[in-house]
Amino acid sequence: MTLDALFKPKSIAVIGASRHKEKVGNVVFRNLLAIYHGKLYPVNTKAEDVEGVKAFKSVKEIPDPIDLVVITVPREAVPTVMEEAVEKQVKAAIVITAGFKEVGEEKLENEVISIARKGSIRVLGPNTFGIITPELNATFAYSDVKRGNIALVVQSGGLGVYMLNWAQKNRIGISYMVSLGNQADIKEYEVLEYLSHDAETKAIFVYLEGVSDGNAFLETLPEVTKRKPVVFLKGGTTSNGAAAAKTHTGSLAGSFEVFKAAVRIGGGILVENLHDLLNLAKLLMYSEPIRDQILVITNSGGHGVLTSDEIEKNGLKLVEIPSWMQEELRKALPPTSMPKNPLDLTGDANRDRYLSALKIVSNLDCTKLVIVQALPMVSCSDVARVITSFKGKGIIGITMGLDEDYALKILESAGIPAYTFPEDAVKAIRYLVKKPEPRKKIRIAQPIEAAVELTKGKTTLRDYEALKLMEIYGIRTPKWGIAESEDEAQRIADNIGYPVVMKISPDQPIHKTELKGVVVNVEKDQVKEVYKQLSKQTKRVLIQEQLSGLEIFVGGLKDPVFGHVVLVGSGGIYVDVLKNVSYALSPVYEDEAQELLQESKIHDMLHARKRGYDEGSLIRTVITVSRMIVDLDIKEMDINPLFVNERGAFATDVRIVLR
Amino acid sequence: MTLDALFKPKSIAVIGASRHKEKVGNVVFRNLLAIYHGKLYPVNTKAEDVEGVKAFKSVKEIPDPIDLVVITVPREAVPTVMEEAVEKQVKAAIVITAGFKEVGEEKLENEVISIARKGSIRVLGPNTFGIITPELNATFAYSDVKRGNIALVVQSGGLGVYMLNWAQKNRIGISYMVSLGNQADIKEYEVLEYLSHDAETKAIFVYLEGVSDGNAFLETLPEVTKRKPVVFLKGGTTSNGAAAAKTHTGSLAGSFEVFKAAVRIGGGILVENLHDLLNLAKLLMYSEPIRDQILVITNSGGHGVLTSDEIEKNGLKLVEIPSWMQEELRKALPPTSMPKNPLDLTGDANRDRYLSALKIVSNLDCTKLVIVQALPMVSCSDVARVITSFKGKGIIGITMGLDEDYALKILESAGIPAYTFPEDAVKAIRYLVKKPEPRKKIRIAQPIEAAVELTKGKTTLRDYEALKLMEIYGIRTPKWGIAESEDEAQRIADNIGYPVVMKISPDQPIHKTELKGVVVNVEKDQVKEVYKQLSKQTKRVLIQEQLSGLEIFVGGLKDPVFGHVVLVGSGGIYVDVLKNVSYALSPVYEDEAQELLQESKIHDMLHARKRGYDEGSLIRTVITVSRMIVDLDIKEMDINPLFVNERGAFATDVRIVLR
Repeated sequence: MTLDALFKPKSIAVIGASRHKEKVGNVVFRNLLAIYHGKLYPVNTKAEDVEGVKAFKSVKEIPDPIDLVVITVPREAVPTVMEEAVEKQVKAAIVITAGFKEVGEEKLENEVISIARKGSIRVLGPNTFGIITPELNATFAYSDVKRGNIALVVQSGGLGVYMLNWAQKNRIGISYMVSLGNQADIKEYEVLEYLSHDAETKAIFVYLEGVSDGNAFLETLPEVTKRKPVVFLKGGTTSNGAAAAKTHTGSLAGSFEVFKAAVRIGGGILVENLHDLLNLAKLLMYSEPIRDQILVITNSGGHGVLTSDEIEKNGLKLVEIPSWMQEELRKALPPTSMPKNPLDLTGDANRDRYLSALKIVSNLDCTKLVIVQALPMVSCSDVARVITSFKGKGIIGITMGLDEDYALKILESAGIPAYTFPEDAVKAIRYLVKKPEPRKKIRIAQPIEAAVELTKGKTTLRDYEALKLMEIYGIRTPKWGIAESEDEAQRIADNIGYPVVMKISPDQPIHKTELKGVVVNVEKDQVKEVYKQLSKQTKRVLIQEQLSGLEIFVGGLKDPVFGHVVLVGSGGIYVDVLKNVSYALSPVYEDEAQELLQESKIHDMLHARKRGYDEGSLIRTVITVSRMIVDLDIKEMDINPLFVNERGAFATDVRIVLR
Repeated sequence: MTLDALFKPKSIAVIGASRHKEKVGNVVFRNLLAIYHGKLYPVNTKAEDVEGVKAFKSVKEIPDPIDLVVITVPREAVPTVMEEAVEKQVKAAIVITAGFKEVGEEKLENEVISIARKGSIRVLGPNTFGIITPELNATFAYSDVKRGNIALVVQSGGLGVYMLNWAQKNRIGISYMVSLGNQADIKEYEVLEYLSHDAETKAIFVYLEGVSDGNAFLETLPEVTKRKPVVFLKGGTTSNGAAAAKTHTGSLAGSFEVFKAAVRIGGGILVENLHDLLNLAKLLMYSEPIRDQILVITNSGGHGVLTSDEIEKNGLKLVEIPSWMQEELRKALPPTSMPKNPLDLTGDANRDRYLSALKIVSNLDCTKLVIVQALPMVSCSDVARVITSFKGKGIIGITMGLDEDYALKILESAGIPAYTFPEDAVKAIRYLVKKPEPRKKIRIAQPIEAAVELTKGKTTLRDYEALKLMEIYGIRTPKWGIAESEDEAQRIADNIGYPVVMKISPDQPIHKTELKGVVVNVEKDQVKEVYKQLSKQTKRVLIQEQLSGLEIFVGGLKDPVFGHVVLVGSGGIYVDVLKNVSYALSPVYEDEAQELLQESKIHDMLHARKRGYDEGSLIRTVITVSRMIVDLDIKEMDINPLFVNERGAFATDVRIVLR
C-alpha cells in the first residue's frame, strides 16, 4: 500500500513542535507522545527539548530515517521545511498549516506540492486537521474515542472532531479519522481505497465538499462499496453552501445532481445531513439484520401512529402479522390491545407484556422497532433488558423518557442499535435497505464515422446538421426539409403533408420561440406567406412534420468533475417549471434509463390514461444520446422536445455545442 | 369559563382509588395527593381508606360538593359511576378508563356521555391520560416538570408524557398538559380556547389524530392564534398511520391535505414530526427576536457550509455583512478568517475571538447562529458564556462536542435558545418566520336563483347542464351546442367554426376519453361521420370550440370534517401524474387563490416562456368555484380541463355531483 508511510509510519517528526501548551505544534506533539509507539522527534529551530524530548533544529539533523513529518509551522516556512524533508528522504507529510488555496494562495500550495513531488513525498493537506488511527493521533484534538470499526474521512477537520466526540458519547468505536484538507496531493479516493482493505474498518463515512478527480472517484468507488458500505454527506449542495465551501477548503462544490448520480452508480449511500449520517452509523456498527418490512411494538398509541406515518413516507412497509400469530397475541394480551401492526401494548404494559409479545413475534422475518415510553408501570431500562435477549432477531430499540440514555446504554452495550426518536431509526433503515448496487462506468468513445465527418472542426451544429446527426445515430426525426425559397418551401411541405411547422434556421443555436421564429399549424395555402415572413430573419427555413405526443427533454453535458452526464425530464414548457430532470453518468444501460424515467415521473406520464406511448423507443433514445455524447465528446446538447407517441420517439429540436 | 371545573376544581374525587401501589387508581390518587391543595376524596367500594385518607363507597356518600371526578374503574362500571356523579351534581369528569370507541365499543361510550349530559357534566375522555395543571396532576404519570409557559394538548397520553419528560430534561417549563382521549364530549377546540385565555401559557403545542368538529375548529383557531402561537403535529397523515390512529383513539384521521389547509387558514404552525415540534418549543419559550435573515458564526468551516445549505433549502437567507462591518472584522480577525457569511473563525479560534466577532456584528438586524465546536483552543461552555452577554440580539447557540450539554444548560439558563444540530435550529426558525396569518372563513350560501332552479332535485348534472351552471356563475365556456342529429351537428359546428371537438353526452358523469367518446380536430367535412360514430353510444352529442392553452384542474369537494374545499392543479393528463394539487377551504379570497397558484406551480406554468396567459381570469374562476360549491352545497365537482390562454379561462369539461 502506497499510503502505509502515512497511516503506519515507523518514525515521525513534528516540524514546529512548540514548547507552548496552547500552540497547535505542541498539542499535536503531545497527542502523538500519548499513544504512538514508534520513534517520535520534535523539530524546533530554537528549543533544546519539547515536552522532555530532545529537539532538532531541522528534520535533516535527526540521526534516524523518518517516514512521516507532521508540519505545523507558519505557511511562509512550509516550502523550506518541505525542501528539508525531501533531502531527508521522508516518505509522507501531513501539512496541518492553513492559509493556502482556501484563502486564494494557490501559488504557495502548488510550490509546496511540487517540492514534495521531487522527493516522492505523499502529502495530506495542506489545511488538514490530521489523522487518527488505532496507533496514533496526529491532530490537535484530544480524543478518547474507543477503538472500533467505523472510519471517518472528512474534508473538514471540525466535522471530523465533532464526529469523534459524538462517537465517544454514543459508544461508537472508530478505526480511522482522516481529515483531507485541500487535497493538494492525496485525494479522497486513495484514502477510500486504502480503508477498503483495512480489516478493522466495517463501514466508511465521508464528508466531502468537492471531488478533485471524478474519473478516479468513479473508478474506485464501486470496488470500495463492494467490500463495505460507504456513506456520503455532501457540503455545498446549494449556491450559498457552495460559496462557503470554496472559502473553506478551496473546493469547487460542483453540481450536486451530478455528484448524486456518481455516488449512486458507485454504490454509495448519500445522506441528507449530519444527523442522518450519525443515525446511520448507529445501524452500521452493529450486525442486527435489517429488512424493509417493519413491525412496530409500542406502549404509546401516538408513537405507533406517527411511526407508521414515517414508515410509509420512507417507502418502507408495515409487515403483516400472520393470523395464527395474531391469535397467539390475542391470547397473551389484554382486550384493549389489538393484535395489529403497529402493536400497541397500551399505556399500562409492563416488562412481562413486552416479553410475551416479543416471544410470539421474534421469528417473524422483519425489522422490529420496539418503542418504550417510560411510564409508571414500566421504565425504558426494564424493556431494554427484555430486548437484549432477542438479539439477532432484527431488533431496534427506541427509548423515550427520563431514563432513555441509560436504556440506550444497555442496548448498545448488548450490540443492539437504539434511538430516542422513531423517525431517526426509520430513516436510517431506509438508507440501508435502499442502498444502490455498485457499477463501473466504462467510457470508450466509439464514434460512427459519418458523425465524425459531420462534426469535424465545428464548435456548434446548425439545426439541420443536428437533425442529421440524430439520424446517423438511428434516432428518428419528424419528416423535414430546408427551404431557401417560397417555391422550395411549398414543394417540401407538400411532400411532408399538412399541417407543418415552419422555423427560422439560424447559423447559431438560439431560442427560436422567443424570436417568434416558429409557426405551427401551417396549412398548404399558408406556406409561401409564412416563408416570406420567416425569411426576413433567416433565408434558410426549416419545415417539419407536425407531431403530437408527450414532449420530453433529453439532454447531455460534460461535467468538469465527472465527465459526460445524460439528463431526462419533462420537455416543452415544463422543463423550466417542473424541473423534474434526472441525471445519470454516461453511458447508461437499459436499467439505468428505466430508472431515469421512473425518477423523473416520465414513466407515469407515458402511461397516464392508459395510452400506448412507445416507452421502448424513448429508452433506446436515452441510451443512444448517452453514448453519442461520449463518442463525440459533446460539451452540451439538448433535444427539446423529443415527441413520444404511439409510433415512437422523434427528436424535433436539437441544440448541440461540441466544445 | 365553562371548563374551570375541570382545570381549577375546588374538590376532586378519585373513583376507583386503589390501595395497590401498581394500580392506575392508586397512582392517580397519589399524584393528586402530592401537590393538589383542594379537597381530595378516594372512592373505593371495598377499602376503608386509601393512602391514609378516609375512603367512600360511592361519590354520593361524600359530605361536601364535588367539582371533578377522576374515573379509573373498569369500563363496565363507568355508566353506574357516572349515574352517581350526576346525582351528586358533579360538574366535570376525567374518564381515564380505556376500552371504548377505540376498540369498537362506541355504544358504551355513547351511553356514558348521554348519562353525563343529563347532569351537564363535562367529560374529558374516555381513554384519556388525564391532565396536569400548575395546581394538580390528575394522571398516572410521575412528573417533576418545572412550571413554565408551554401548554401541551395531546390526543395520545403517551406522547404527552414523553413531552413532559423531554421538557424536564431540556429545562422547558410547562403550564398545562391535557390528554384529550377519545374526545367524546370535550373537544380540542374548547381546550385551545381555554388555554388561549390562560395568562401563564405563552405557546400551545397540539398532537392530533383527528378533528371532531371542523366548523368549531375553524371558528376557534384564528382567535387562539391571534393571542399566541399554536403548533400542530398530526398523526395519521398516511394510510398506515390513519389505520393505526383509528385503533388508537377511534379517530377518523381524515384528509391530511384538508387538515393542512385548515391549520394554515387558522394561523397555526404545522410541523412534520415530533423532533421538529420539540425544537420549535425551544424557540418559542424564550423571547430572542427571530428573523429570516441569518448570520452564521462558526469555528468549523464544514459546519458553516452545511448550515448555509440548510438555510437555503429552508427558504431563509444569509444576511449580507455591510462593508464597513467587514472591514472591522478584517481588522479583528486573523488573515485565515474571511469576513464573509458564514463567518468562519477557523479551528484555532478561542473565546476572545468569538467575543470580538460578536461585538462587531451584535447590532446587525438578523438572527445569529453561533456554532461552537469544542476544540483544544476552546470549549462549548467557554463560548456559551460569551454568548450570554449578547442576549436580546437575536442569538441562537449551537454547541457541538463533549461538553455540549453543559453549554446548552448555560445558554438555556440565560434564556437563550440552543441546539446541538444547526439544521434543527434552521428548521425551527423557518417554521416561526413563515407562520401564516390567521383568517376566519365565513361561509354563507348566497346561491344565484337560476342556479337553484337548474340544480333543484338533482343528484348529478349532465355535461350541458354543468356548462350552463358555469355560465350562470359567469365562468366562460368554449362555444358549444348539443346535437341530436347529423344535420343539427353540422349546423352547430358551422356556427362554432373549425376545427371542433365532439363528445358523447351521457346522462351520468363518466370518463368520456376512456370510452373513446371524444374526437378532436374535427373538420367541416368530418362532422356528420363523427356524429354517426358517437351516436352509437349516446344520441346526444356535445360539440365544442377547440381551444388551446394551459390545461388546469379546478375542483371542489365537501370534506366530512372541514366542509367545502377548493382544489387547483395541473389539468389534463398531468392531474394524475404530477399530483401538484393545492387545497384551500372555501370560499377563497384573491390572495388565497394566488397562493394556490404559487404552491401548485400553476403560476410558473402560466408565465413560462413569457406567454401572456390570463392569470386574472383563472383567479376569478377559482374564487367563483369556491363560492359556488358553498352556495349549492356541492359534494364533488371538477373542471378538467379549464383551458387558460391569452383570451381568458374556459371551462371545457365539468363534472358535478350535487349530493
